[in-house]
Amino acid sequence: MKYERTYNFSAGPAMMPEPVLEEIRDEMMNYRGSGMCVMEMSHRSKVFQQIADEAVSDLRKLMNIPDNYKVLFVQGGGTLQFAMVPMNLMKNGVACYIETGEWSKKALKEAKKFGEVKVVASSADKKFSYVPDCSDLDIPENADYVYICENETINGNTFNKLPDTKGKILVSDQSSMFLSRPCNVADYGLIWAGVQKNVGPAGMAVVIIREDLLTDDLPKNTPIYLSYKTHADNDSMYNTPNCWAIYCVGKVFRYLLDNGGIEAMEKKNVEKAKVLYDFLDQSKLFKAPVAKADRSLMNVVFSTGSEELDAEVVAASKKAGFDNLKGHRSIGGLRASIYNAMPKEGVEALVSFLKEFEAARA
Amino acid sequence: MKYERTYNFSAGPAMMPEPVLEEIRDEMMNYRGSGMCVMEMSHRSKVFQQIADEAVSDLRKLMNIPDNYKVLFVQGGGTLQFAMVPMNLMKNGVACYIETGEWSKKALKEAKKFGEVKVVASSADKKFSYVPDCSDLDIPENADYVYICENETINGNTFNKLPDTKGKILVSDQSSMFLSRPCNVADYGLIWAGVQKNVGPAGMAVVIIREDLLTDDLPKNTPIYLSYKTHADNDSMYNTPNCWAIYCVGKVFRYLLDNGGIEAMEKKNVEKAKVLYDFLDQSKLFKAPVAKADRSLMNVVFSTGSEELDAEVVAASKKAGFDNLKGHRSIGGLRASIYNAMPKEGVEALVSFLKEFEAARA
Repeated sequence: MKYERTYNFSAGPAMMPEPVLEEIRDEMMNYRGSGMCVMEMSHRSKVFQQIADEAVSDLRKLMNIPDNYKVLFVQGGGTLQFAMVPMNLMKNGVACYIETGEWSKKALKEAKKFGEVKVVASSADKKFSYVPDCSDLDIPENADYVYICENETINGNTFNKLPDTKGKILVSDQSSMFLSRPCNVADYGLIWAGVQKNVGPAGMAVVIIREDLLTDDLPKNTPIYLSYKTHADNDSMYNTPNCWAIYCVGKVFRYLLDNGGIEAMEKKNVEKAKVLYDFLDQSKLFKAPVAKADRSLMNVVFSTGSEELDAEVVAASKKAGFDNLKGHRSIGGLRASIYNAMPKEGVEALVSFLKEFEAARA
Repeated sequence: MKYERTYNFSAGPAMMPEPVLEEIRDEMMNYRGSGMCVMEMSHRSKVFQQIADEAVSDLRKLMNIPDNYKVLFVQGGGTLQFAMVPMNLMKNGVACYIETGEWSKKALKEAKKFGEVKVVASSADKKFSYVPDCSDLDIPENADYVYICENETINGNTFNKLPDTKGKILVSDQSSMFLSRPCNVADYGLIWAGVQKNVGPAGMAVVIIREDLLTDDLPKNTPIYLSYKTHADNDSMYNTPNCWAIYCVGKVFRYLLDNGGIEAMEKKNVEKAKVLYDFLDQSKLFKAPVAKADRSLMNVVFSTGSEELDAEVVAASKKAGFDNLKGHRSIGGLRASIYNAMPKEGVEALVSFLKEFEAARA
């Protein structure tokens, strides 16, 4: 590898495309003749405004976002979105959550602070190893929205079919699958994604919200930063945004457009995941616990079934030049996050390593 | 200049030290043998934890922060701090604000959502061109805290003597003066600063809070992200922080330590500001409106008194290779922000330009 870069299987922050990092490096001391680094630019300057405008318009192209949706860049990560969603969308004070793992659990716990939360489907009974049937959910007439975590980073499952919300607004946390495969934005009322998994550096969430959901009619003690309308009315510049993250994600959006868009990414992601799951399914040592139909293309969760042996795998993988194979501290085991920027060779190298590890113990 | 870098007088985001940017550039593709860019690192990894730990410990050294204060890194900028301060500190529901400009006005407006706000001193009568006498304020017995914006970025004034809070907690927004001169942290209950002015890239605030002010006893509908205790209990990693900003500010802290610390910065800043104010005070064309005793060392506000002529100055300054001399859109006029990273030569070059501009019109 040119810079001796490691295959980094981190769940996020995670790998970024090498050509993007090279561009960022080359523009560090003087961005395109501006005489300054992007980090030094006034967010109100023309040069930065152009960077921000291009990021938004490239994302619109990539995802084919309809005109009646706004694209927002908000700080505070998923944790702040867990609060902003109910604070902005709970008009009747009732929301439906589908519980498929640690992140939907966190989201619904936070939402309970702001109203009644109805868990309308859950896969908690089998340690979130599947996505429940959501074709006929019991959704109250006065429900404000239905919330899903479309890809559970920790548990490694993903929705391959969206729930039937019975006409209610669908809200989706797409953090760990954002831009990994096409989606029809019009199916959603609100999509949000922390960018530090599949797109860029930590410190920002992208929010795609249908304009009719923007409202000033919020409880009086709502912090102005926590109103989506604040950000929408000011094109994400009510206050100084995370300019650096906007710059970096903009570069990744452009890179994706130049490399076949999300359709090409999906093809590559399906291939990459197949390499790893195919190995795991024939292995006598490693097991992938998630039901085949619901497996994440991004976060491949697996385990030997033994805590000690899993730890040995992690230690040996580090020596072999891989990084961040350890499962999330809340559930243990192993996990390989293989986002857009992970090359197929990285997954193949990992499988070779796991094969050798298994053979040495057979 | 080596990279043809401009003298950038932006109020923030603003100039960063050139050697810091060079280091960041050189570490872009492979941070110290880790095989990855800092943007790609898991925030839970040892390599990133060390970056974060060093940033905190270097800031502690720089500011001589007592052990009973926590250092937090929080997203959402000043706008979120305007809400977090009252949400976390208003126990009796009463706070005193000193109004010295646009930012203290915004802060007190937000605080009104959470309780009673008493403006105990103001310089609104003279367009915030001075800092009011705060030696004998009428502070209610049940006041939870006294709030100041210690350096008003837009209006160009600064507190050279802290208010007598009559024993109440002092809260200070130090955004545009952070690390520009020494301060005695023990005089404050809470100091916060958006880092995008005097330290690093936008997207993060540093909060320095006395430990006894951390509390779980908050209204039930307080978003978990908005509790200072959430961040303190998890060393700013309850969720993924703005890792890139932590990395960059850490480099700036280290750079300041290696270059004489805050005392050396203050000396340099006093000299730099004197060059500009001395010129303005003898000029027949330009006027600095702020009372001499209360002038900011960081944000030098001035004007010709004519909107058209000010616009001409801005246009001519751009042609001469300067940037961002325009005053804030809320008050107009001209402003040169000369933070730590602005070299004295930049201020001298600006004065030469202004002299020539004046001479050409004499």
